This record gives sequence, C-alpha cells and structure tokens, in this order.
Amino acid sequence: MKLGEIAEKLGLTLEGNADCEITGVAGLDEAGPTELSFLSNPRYAPKLKTTHAGAVIVGAKVQVEATRPLLRAPDAYLAFAHVLALFYQPPDPPPGIHPTAVIDPTARLGDQVSLGPYVVIGANAVIGDRVTIQAHCTIYPGVTIGADSYLHANCVVREFVTIGARCRLQNQVTVGSDGFGYAKQPSGAWFKIVQAGTVVLEDDVEIGAGSQIDRASIGETRICRGAKIDNLVQVGHGSTVGEDTLLCAQVGLAGSSQVGNRVTLAGQVGVAGHLTIGDDVVATAQTGIPNSVEPKKIVSGYPAIDNRDWLKASVVFQKLPELYKTIRALQERVAALEQEKT
Amino acid sequence: MKLGEIAEKLGLTLEGNADCEITGVAGLDEAGPTELSFLSNPRYAPKLKTTHAGAVIVGAKVQVEATRPLLRAPDAYLAFAHVLALFYQPPDPPPGIHPTAVIDPTARLGDQVSLGPYVVIGANAVIGDRVTIQAHCTIYPGVTIGADSYLHANCVVREFVTIGARCRLQNQVTVGSDGFGYAKQPSGAWFKIVQAGTVVLEDDVEIGAGSQIDRASIGETRICRGAKIDNLVQVGHGSTVGEDTLLCAQVGLAGSSQVGNRVTLAGQVGVAGHLTIGDDVVATAQTGIPNSVEPKKIVSGYPAIDNRDWLKASVVFQKLPELYKTIRALQERVAALEQEKT
Amino acid sequence: MKLGEIAEKLGLTLEGNADCEITGVAGLDEAGPTELSFLSNPRYAPKLKTTHAGAVIVGAKVQVEATRPLLRAPDAYLAFAHVLALFYQPPDPPPGIHPTAVIDPTARLGDQVSLGPYVVIGANAVIGDRVTIQAHCTIYPGVTIGADSYLHANCVVREFVTIGARCRLQNQVTVGSDGFGYAKQPSGAWFKIVQAGTVVLEDDVEIGAGSQIDRASIGETRICRGAKIDNLVQVGHGSTVGEDTLLCAQVGLAGSSQVGNRVTLAGQVGVAGHLTIGDDVVATAQTGIPNSVEPKKIVSGYPAIDNRDWLKASVVFQKLPELYKTIRALQERVAALEQEKT
Repeated sequence: MKLGEIAEKLGLTLEGNADCEITGVAGLDEAGPTELSFLSNPRYAPKLKTTHAGAVIVGAKVQVEATRPLLRAPDAYLAFAHVLALFYQPPDPPPGIHPTAVIDPTARLGDQVSLGPYVVIGANAVIGDRVTIQAHCTIYPGVTIGADSYLHANCVVREFVTIGARCRLQNQVTVGSDGFGYAKQPSGAWFKIVQAGTVVLEDDVEIGAGSQIDRASIGETRICRGAKIDNLVQVGHGSTVGEDTLLCAQVGLAGSSQVGNRVTLAGQVGVAGHLTIGDDVVATAQTGIPNSVEPKKIVSGYPAIDNRDWLKASVVFQKLPELYKTIRALQERVAALEQEKT
Repeated sequence: MKLGEIAEKLGLTLEGNADCEITGVAGLDEAGPTELSFLSNPRYAPKLKTTHAGAVIVGAKVQVEATRPLLRAPDAYLAFAHVLALFYQPPDPPPGIHPTAVIDPTARLGDQVSLGPYVVIGANAVIGDRVTIQAHCTIYPGVTIGADSYLHANCVVREFVTIGARCRLQNQVTVGSDGFGYAKQPSGAWFKIVQAGTVVLEDDVEIGAGSQIDRASIGETRICRGAKIDNLVQVGHGSTVGEDTLLCAQVGLAGSSQVGNRVTLAGQVGVAGHLTIGDDVVATAQTGIPNSVEPKKIVSGYPAIDNRDWLKASVVFQKLPELYKTIRALQERVAALEQEKT
Repeated sequence: MKLGEIAEKLGLTLEGNADCEITGVAGLDEAGPTELSFLSNPRYAPKLKTTHAGAVIVGAKVQVEATRPLLRAPDAYLAFAHVLALFYQPPDPPPGIHPTAVIDPTARLGDQVSLGPYVVIGANAVIGDRVTIQAHCTIYPGVTIGADSYLHANCVVREFVTIGARCRLQNQVTVGSDGFGYAKQPSGAWFKIVQAGTVVLEDDVEIGAGSQIDRASIGETRICRGAKIDNLVQVGHGSTVGEDTLLCAQVGLAGSSQVGNRVTLAGQVGVAGHLTIGDDVVATAQTGIPNSVEPKKIVSGYPAIDNRDWLKASVVFQKLPELYKTIRALQERVAALEQEKT
C-alpha cells in the first residue's frame, strides 16, 4: 500500500513521498525500509535517528529531522492502531453453520451467523446477526448474544446471560458461572445458595482468555459498555464494572464490588466485596483494596493508600533495619544523657 | 406461593398475614411488594424501615416494628438460602445420553445419568447414578464419579481421578492435571517427574470455574468432604484441603500444603508448600503464608503474622515517612544535647 | 522389577541384595517393604531409621547404616524421577485419528499422529510426527506443532502459533489469545489494537493447566527451549521467557517482559511490562517486580528488593507498633532534657 493511500484512508497529514510503498507495520527497532513505524512515547524519540523504518507516524507537533516520510497524527498511538488494522486481519471463519453444531430447535439465529464445529446452542437462545461462535463453545439455555459479537473457541455462556453487541470473548472464558455463596448450617457444613441471578455484558465489552465472570445470587453482575477485561480475571457475583474500565490480568473482584467508569485496575489487584471504587480511579499492580475509594484517586499497597504516600513509605520500608539500629542507639544515648543529668 | 406455605415448608415462625402472596426473593433495597427479603447483617437493620419488600426474614430475636409480615428464623441467612431454592432452580438438562457423546465400551454408567453433547468418557470410567455431565466435558480413562455429582460444560477430569457423591464442578475446571515437578539434569535442563499419583474429591465438594487441581506425583491430592473452592484457584500436587474449608478466588496452594478443616483462605492468598495450616484458621485477602499456622489463628500480610499485629503495623507503615523525619530530627537534637554537655 | 535390574537400567551403584523385589515407588513415610524410596533433602535423613521402604536411593556420599539395600546416585532426586518413570506411565490414547475429528483438507498430519474425539484442526495447520492431541482441542488455521508434542484435552492453539518439538500442554491452556491492547479514542472509548503478532514455543516447553499465553501485537511472544510454566499463569503480549526458566503457578507477566534464562519466579509473582529480568534471577512468592532486575539477584517484596534486605525489613515491620511507641517516648524524653537545659 502506498503511503499516500494510508494517509488518505486515515485522514493523516503526510510529509514526504506519497509513493513510498509500505508492506507492513513494526516497532522502531524492528522496522525495515518498507515498514511503517510510530513514535508515541517521547522517551523513544532518539530511536527516530536509528530506525530503518520506511516511514514513521508521529504526533502533530513532534520535531523530527526530515530524513524519511512522516505521517502526522493527533494521536500517534491511535493512528498506529488504525494502520495495523489496515495491514492485518485475523483469519475469520466463514459465515454459516458447521454441520456438527448442535442447535436446540427453539433457539433463534440471526443473519450471517457463523457457528464453528461442535458449537452447542441451548433452548431459547437468541443469537444476533453476524455473530461468530468458534469451535467448542457451549451456549446454555436462555442466552442472548447481540449483533456482531465474537466468541473464540472453548468459551461457555451460562443460562440466561445477556451479551450485548460487538462484544468479544477470548478463549476459555466463562460468563455466568455460579457465584461463591454458601450459608453455614448448624452442623458446620455449607448449604449452597442457589445463584438465581444472571450476568449482563453491555455493548463493546471484551473479556480475556480464561477469565471467569460469576452470575449474581439475586439480581445481576453487570459489565458496562466498553469495559475491557484481561486474562484470568475473577469477577465475583453481583459486581458491577463501569464503562470503559480496564481490569488487567489476574485482577480479582469479590462479590458486590462496584467499580466505576474509566477505572484502571492493574495486574493482580484484589478488591474486597461490598464496596465502591469511584470513577477514574487507578490502582497500581498487586494493590489490595479493602474499602471504598474516592473518584480519581491513585492507590497502591495493601491495604491500599494514596500512591504517593505508598511510594514514600516503601522507600522507608527498605531502610527499616537501619532505622531500627538508629532508634536503639538513640535510646542508649538518651539514657546516657538522662543518667549524667542526675 | 403464599407466605404461610413458605413458613410451613421451611419450619419458620410467621408473624403476620399468611395469605400474603410471594412471587420471588430480592435484597432489601430491590424487593417489591410481592417479594420476600431478609435481614442477616444487623448493620442493615435501618433498611427495614425503607424497604418495599412484602415480607422479611429476620432472626429470632430481632426487634422490628410490625409494618409487614415477618418470618422468624434461627439463622436468617440460611433461611433465605432455603427460600431462594424454593423460587429458583437452574434449567437442568434432561436425563439421557446425547447421541453425540463418545463413550468407551468399557465405561459403566449408572441409572438416570445425563450426558450432554460431545461428552467424552474414557475406558473403564465409572459414572454414578443421576450424575450430570454437560457438553464438552472430557472424562479420561479410569475416572470414578459418585452419585448425584454435576459437572458443568467444558470440564476435564484426568486419568484415575476419584470424585465423590454430590460434588459440583463449575465450568472450565480441571481435576488431575500434572503437578509441576522437574528434576534438574547436569546439563541444566529440567527432567519431567512423572505425576504418578491422583486426586480424590470426597463428597459434597464444589470447585469454581477455571480452577485447576493438580494430581500428586506419588500418592494423592485430596479435597475433603464439604470443602468449597472458588474460581481460578490453584491446588498444587500432593496438597490436602480439609473438611468444610473455603478457598476463595485466585488462592494458590503450592505442593504438599496441608490445609485443615473449616479453614478460610480469602481471595488471592498464597500458601507455600510442605507446611500445615491448622483447623479453623482464617487468612485475610492476599496473605502470603510461608510457614505452618497454628489452629484458630487469624493471619494477614506477607509474610503472614497475627491479623491484629498486622493491622497495627500497617497503620504505622503509612506513617513511615513522617517517622523517618522524626528520627532524623531526634538524632540532631540528641547530638546537640551531647555536644553542649562537653 | 528386581533392584539389580533398576540399578542396571539407571546406571546406579547398588549396595545390598540385587534380588530384592520392587513393585513401586513411595515417599519415606509411606513406602512399604516392596517399595523404593529416596532421600534427597538431608533434613529428612532421620527418616531412614523409621521408613519401611524395601530400598532407598541416596546420594553418593550419604552415610547410612546398612539396614536395607541402597541405590547410590550422583543426584538422588533425579534418580528418583527416572525410577518413577520405570514404574508409571499415564495411559496414552492410541495413535490414529478419531472419526469425529474435524480436519481441514489443507492441514498436513505427520506419521503416527493421535487425534482424540472432537479435535478441530484448521486450514493449513501442520502437525508433526507422533503428536498427540486429546479431545476437544481447537487448533486454529496456520498453526505448526513439532514432533512428539502432546496437547491434553480442551486446549486451544490460536492462528499462526508455532509450537516446537516435545512440548506439552496441560488442560485448558490457550496459546495465542489476543494481547490486551487498546488505544484511547477522543470519546474516551477504547479502540482495539489488532494483535497481529504470534507466539512461538520453542522445543521442550511445558505449559500448566489453565495458563494463557497471549500473542504479540506486532512481532512475537516467545517461550524459549526448556522453559516450564505452571498453572494459571498469564504471559502478556510480546514477552520472552528464557531457556529452562520456571514460572510457578499464578505468575503474571505484563506485556513485553523479558525474562532471562534459568530464572525462577515463584507463585503469584507479578512482573510489570517493558523490563528485563536477568539470567538466574529468583523471585520469591508474591514478589512484585516493577523494574529490571540484574542477573543472579534473589528478590522479594513489593516493590521487589534484595531478598536479604526484605527479610530483615519484614522482621522490623512486625515491630513497627512497638517502635512507634519507642519513638514517641524518645521525643518526650529528649524534650524533657532540652527543657532542663534551659
């Protein structure tokens, strides 16, 4: 594809040779003379001098010596994401129902649905137009899946779950497994609480490989519009995950966690149940959140505190053995002073 | 269902109108005038004044103004769990063998077994009466599954594993995957240790979605009667999990962990191998347990210490930057005092 | 099998009766008079006096009273691993293609391949000689799997992934799921970045049950020769895991983590992205690694510091409440001294 064509398709400003032929996209270190690269993090600006890329996407105001063509973008990273989609699309299965799919006669399928080998669709399920369900997915009875959603192989959607439009499940995901709820009996044995609620994924939600989203005991677990969930994440029963929120890999939400909009929980963060995390909160990796967090806070540590306070306290933590000696020495010195006084 | 009928079925004491019609169950905040709610946590008692519930389950001695019918129960939460089961049962597949199930001719199936589409049953497997195995489960050779157990879709039970009666596996569970065992060879490469042991789930065990229970290298991994395991939990080879013990989501047990009876390990707790956790221990979320723990202890932090000590130390941790300054100032003040003295 | 035969097969030195009949292998505590046991950890040497084992594998120089036959090995643990493989081999499925396997006509299969029930093989996949793929595995288009590799039931290998020779996937593994990459749009909604890269597993890699290995956005995620990955591990897009490295259960690597050779990351360790962990590094359980780590370091804590420093600081952490009181008391005592002086 010619660079001029890319610029036109994406509405970017071209500086340099429009006829430059681009065959792919790569990082600044790896790109060759027919590849397009990008600079979004200013930290990597020096690489512009050493890269072999044929052309580079840069921000509107980045100053670069014009040794190669540039594409100017309001947001270089977003432009890169769009360019990448021009050059690569994963191989999608063809529309149509594989003859081995087992479809309950009461299920309703939209137009241009693609069902892979061994897909199982339960009673009264409603599958929207252009939905793709890859091999070995099990769709329990009463499920609704909105138009243009895409389920990768070996996923499970449990009874009565609702999935919106344009959602995407990576592999080995379960949506709607039973929540972890038991009541103690006088004998000490646990009595299972029927998980009578459901899960709702709103539109444009993506769930990463191996993640498990529990259904509510009563009511619903809800993942709001545009939320993105990484791999091996646990969402406990009755939780809500807000719009455009990111849950990174191995995050765990206990039951009835209310996570706001545009929140970022980094990898391995744990959230206790029955609390509220406000909009735009960021929790750094491995943070443990036992109590509600106010909007826009950045928190770290366990129990979670303000990120800056935690960073400072962590520095002192490393000096604790030295501080301990200092304090013991001070005790002796003060005792000596006190003794002399008498 | 009439309130009087519910009271009778569950043996609860009714205060108020037995003819009150109940159509479902909901939380105090959500319940409408034909729904039954419950109060188990005294913290929520004020909600009794604002709820729109048609009737409420309360403890035997809770004082409530009689504005609506009450069901008195020795344990309101347990009674709620029983009521919920009256109103909701998930849609179970019908008994019978789906024609697509692949069953080794040497396998033995009990009465009224339900095998879903594409279930695979290996050689010499023994499936008890009224067992349900949903779609896409793979049962390896030599497995035994006790009566009334229920395997949700896409689970795997590996060779020679024994599952007791009334066990329940949520989706994407593996029972009996190889433990993580290697011996270092002189070249530095790892030699895989055959995992020759097995896994035993005793009766009434439940395993959450995506959890992985490793088989022992020699001997067995054992999950004792009534233990409940949440989602994405790792049980390492040769571990024992005691009776009625709860392992919450994302807990990890390394190899040969011995976890006692009635233990609770909260979310994301990690347990090192070759140690013993006594009966009735509680570990709060994200605790890391490197050594054995005595019965009935409540532990927190990493490395795990007594919960109260950890809470106090955590409070001081947050003040470390301030303490650091205080100590530095004290050093100067003491030095000044020492100098004046001379 | 006679003890003399075992000694000969494994090249070990026998001390005692070569005709001693051995029927199996067990730990020192459990072994009976026809079982072989082993002593590798000197801590357990006293058990040699109490074990009922028929014979014991010990190191070359271990001093033992000769109350039973011994097998002398340069490395008793490695010898035990070899002996165990003599006595136990898991039941492998027979070679051959199960009639229910769905194989794209453009796929190429090597000699003596074993494909279980309901295996799905996509277009242009290349499956090497003697590869075993158990039930319900989904192999996407364009995948290459090297000779003698073994995929347990219910795994997924995504488009264009390359798996080397003698690799082993436990159950419910995904190799090649989409990485977690999004670019923020002016509206605040996330734009999915096509994950155009792939994953390469080199030879002799093992991946534990439920682990998820993401494909790169551009370029590749690479697991190098001989690396062993335990259960429920997350490997983020574009990461590299070095040769003979061990990632224990529930470890998480964020994107573009470069992990060196012979590294050990213990259970639940988290690694931030865009950093390098040098060769031979050890991180103890639950460590959080936000920055690069130099070769051969042993690190602990969050943020990760030198293990010995962390152990010392952790001891003082537990004394923080007492130290706090000491400091407050010192402040008063110093203030008293200062006042008297005036």
